[in-house]
Amino acid sequence: MMNGLDRIRLLSLRDKVMSAEKAIELIQDGSVVGLSGFGGAGEAKTVPLALADHAVSHPLRITLATGASLGNSIDGRLNAAHAIERRYPYQADPGLRKAINAGEVMYIDQHLSEMADNIRHHNLPRINVAVIAATAITEDGQIIPTGSCGNSANFIEMADHVIIEIDNTINPVLEGVHDIYVPKARPNRGPIPLTQVGERIGTIGINVSPDKISAIVLNDLPDTQFKMDEPDAETLAIAQHLIDFFEGEVAAGRLPENLGPLQSGVGSIANAVFAGFEHSNFHDLEMYSEVLQDCTFQLIDSGKMNFASGCSMTLSEPCAQHVMNNFDQYKDKIVLRPQELSNNPEIIRRLGIIAINTALEFDIYGNVNSTHVTGTKMMNGIGGSGDFTRHAHIAIFVTKSIAKGGAISSVVPMVSHTDHTDHDVDIVVTEQGLADLRGLSPRERARKVIEICAHPDYRAALLSYFERACERGGQTPHILKEALSWHATFEETGSMRQIV
Amino acid sequence: MMNGLDRIRLLSLRDKVMSAEKAIELIQDGSVVGLSGFGGAGEAKTVPLALADHAVSHPLRITLATGASLGNSIDGRLNAAHAIERRYPYQADPGLRKAINAGEVMYIDQHLSEMADNIRHHNLPRINVAVIAATAITEDGQIIPTGSCGNSANFIEMADHVIIEIDNTINPVLEGVHDIYVPKARPNRGPIPLTQVGERIGTIGINVSPDKISAIVLNDLPDTQFKMDEPDAETLAIAQHLIDFFEGEVAAGRLPENLGPLQSGVGSIANAVFAGFEHSNFHDLEMYSEVLQDCTFQLIDSGKMNFASGCSMTLSEPCAQHVMNNFDQYKDKIVLRPQELSNNPEIIRRLGIIAINTALEFDIYGNVNSTHVTGTKMMNGIGGSGDFTRHAHIAIFVTKSIAKGGAISSVVPMVSHTDHTDHDVDIVVTEQGLADLRGLSPRERARKVIEICAHPDYRAALLSYFERACERGGQTPHILKEALSWHATFEETGSMRQIV
Repeated sequence: MMNGLDRIRLLSLRDKVMSAEKAIELIQDGSVVGLSGFGGAGEAKTVPLALADHAVSHPLRITLATGASLGNSIDGRLNAAHAIERRYPYQADPGLRKAINAGEVMYIDQHLSEMADNIRHHNLPRINVAVIAATAITEDGQIIPTGSCGNSANFIEMADHVIIEIDNTINPVLEGVHDIYVPKARPNRGPIPLTQVGERIGTIGINVSPDKISAIVLNDLPDTQFKMDEPDAETLAIAQHLIDFFEGEVAAGRLPENLGPLQSGVGSIANAVFAGFEHSNFHDLEMYSEVLQDCTFQLIDSGKMNFASGCSMTLSEPCAQHVMNNFDQYKDKIVLRPQELSNNPEIIRRLGIIAINTALEFDIYGNVNSTHVTGTKMMNGIGGSGDFTRHAHIAIFVTKSIAKGGAISSVVPMVSHTDHTDHDVDIVVTEQGLADLRGLSPRERARKVIEICAHPDYRAALLSYFERACERGGQTPHILKEALSWHATFEETGSMRQIV
Repeated sequence: MMNGLDRIRLLSLRDKVMSAEKAIELIQDGSVVGLSGFGGAGEAKTVPLALADHAVSHPLRITLATGASLGNSIDGRLNAAHAIERRYPYQADPGLRKAINAGEVMYIDQHLSEMADNIRHHNLPRINVAVIAATAITEDGQIIPTGSCGNSANFIEMADHVIIEIDNTINPVLEGVHDIYVPKARPNRGPIPLTQVGERIGTIGINVSPDKISAIVLNDLPDTQFKMDEPDAETLAIAQHLIDFFEGEVAAGRLPENLGPLQSGVGSIANAVFAGFEHSNFHDLEMYSEVLQDCTFQLIDSGKMNFASGCSMTLSEPCAQHVMNNFDQYKDKIVLRPQELSNNPEIIRRLGIIAINTALEFDIYGNVNSTHVTGTKMMNGIGGSGDFTRHAHIAIFVTKSIAKGGAISSVVPMVSHTDHTDHDVDIVVTEQGLADLRGLSPRERARKVIEICAHPDYRAALLSYFERACERGGQTPHILKEALSWHATFEETGSMRQIV
């Protein structure tokens, strides 16, 4: 039997297996294509890469919608073939980023929780073709996702045609880890019944009428594996500030002993924070987040974490091997959910999540830029940071106080682009310290941010700006002619040090 | 019997009636005081005004928490007595505004839906004394609110002492119009069960143990009554653009025939839009909003609107008289709820609300400033605009294209303060036209905003800025040295016209 055919357990569907080259005939110039994939995990691979190859000689341009970022350089290869006209809601590919910033690709950076409703209720166009990676198709025709859920269930529901890519590289033990729940269309939508991190409210697979499946393609290309940077002195210091803060809050009776559910953005700072928990006194930790990384499984291994709910798993090669070989230990402790659920405001506020995300820069009043370098150039996108920050019980942003060897201060008079406003940001942290801004007015916030978080090299200049701005008055004092001068100086001279 | 004593139907509580001068002995220097009141309606009056009088000769400074804005110049008179040290989450008083902008009062401008959780879960200090206006106290001790619900139920639950102000000026017919529901504290909070605009999920009054009531004061001062400006040519044009848009969306099958629940900010533009509905073909309209104004009742009268859910009623004198004298016509068609419910993200997203709010200014990319004049001076506060905008099905901002006789363009290269980011803003409207920004990238948004919404006098300068910025590249092209120059020029010369 062809490798992977046995994963199609609804036998009548085996007739739909075809080559990727044949399947992509469903995709036309101008098509809106919905692809599985979130956090660089769980994307369909063979079909989009065949499309990229095909587009080199047969020009076409599509709208590409995904869960979030894709692995296997799929965005990069489709972009290199000039096949992407529009792209949403998130990407993290160097080549595509360049095209976006050149204005060649129209990129609509969106809150990850919102895209399903935007398609369902006509704010975004219908999906013409959904291309969804699957671990298996069950006897009753359910599609079992792979390493992420993303928007896959929504794309399947809202697509004209569905292509399933059976991923032979995915360990079949993953069947059962997903919890697929799709809210009803308005106006008769009820509450989402999830009330605890570890609860299951859906099915293990995506329900779809077999008639809607137009093609099945077999894939042997594995998901990209990630290498996590070791924490450096600054990230360890940030992690320690956070642990100290949490200990203080528990001691003061303001947080429960297990802190409540944790969310964390992806990256080495998040990893360092979670490593910090391992050597702390916290216990019975829970995670309600997007991407489950190595550190999640280390906390489960060390008995510190009871349960982790995510939308995807993005693991290093050794961690992935360990998890898959010992999956019995984890299967009752993790769940993967669609991003409409993992990032849902209703759930995030109900559960009282502590959200830890990374800022590119923040300003003295606690406004945060997560996306735009010097206010203009897109890095990746807002991703889930807005979903979590707005609705979190405590919203925290972390960053190193300086970048590029000190040429950039990450604490500035005014952010050059605002993704999260001061209304939404409770705490900011650098290796210098943690500023707790809860219940403070803008002027109070500014003094704390400057004194606690700014790098010593930039502190005096920030204080000078703030005090001169205060002389002019206002709830949020600024000198408009000078507010963005730090960034402008950086653009001109390659360093903000000229300011100091 | 003393006027109003009969409204205290739990007889044992009548012993607690005392003068305001006696009751305010509960309030100390440094107290955190939680006051009823939202949208200039339903505030306690006699007690805070006695406190203001007292503070003139006996200096004290309090933290003042409310639902939202207060009527009867209470903020102004407390501020004039220097009695307000800290203030949240919203205000709209000219005198207090001045003190805030001078840095004399620490003002923490917050999303209105969030304050209850912030107190309940220790992000803000506990309430020492709650002062709550009541239409009546029932036989079983329930507190019946007056013209608004605000945070009253939360303040009573979370306060050390409760002062009830029986408001003799409130027509007793209002008993039964409130729907009081308080979410449980985490971690055992369930879904909020509200699924339809007209549904009731709570009680008609606030439950409180009679022991917790420390004082009852009788009040004879009426709520402030409002005069609504007649719409001018520009507001009528904005309203017509919106009606045309809605008709187009229904015709295209993208909106249901009754549009779905509507939210609208307070003011003459909102009134003009709602007046526009009266002469439209729409029917079975519903409102899920904060403040019910005259226009709400006019739409009910004309048979266009089936139901309106709000947090407060702010009516003109003739409208208030008409409504109170004919309350039987309205009592099954309106409900007032706590702001934790009226502004709740969970409900707003579930119901699929169309949110219409007023911007001070917006920029070419669709970022919105709702609060800060030239980026520094607080006008009122973000209020509920963030609660509704982020979670709405369609989020709309309206403003006239110019202000101060054309000295200010409300469409600018970059907003001087960001309250709502481009991620959250779907549509912007001026009297010039309506720009539908859904599904567009920043560069596409800019062209539409400039061509459709900007005043002709400023269009060429905006286009020049945008095109020169595009030459530098980026997802959101900007020239940082110039981005805020329109505002800086206005500060220097009193007009942005120098730019053109």
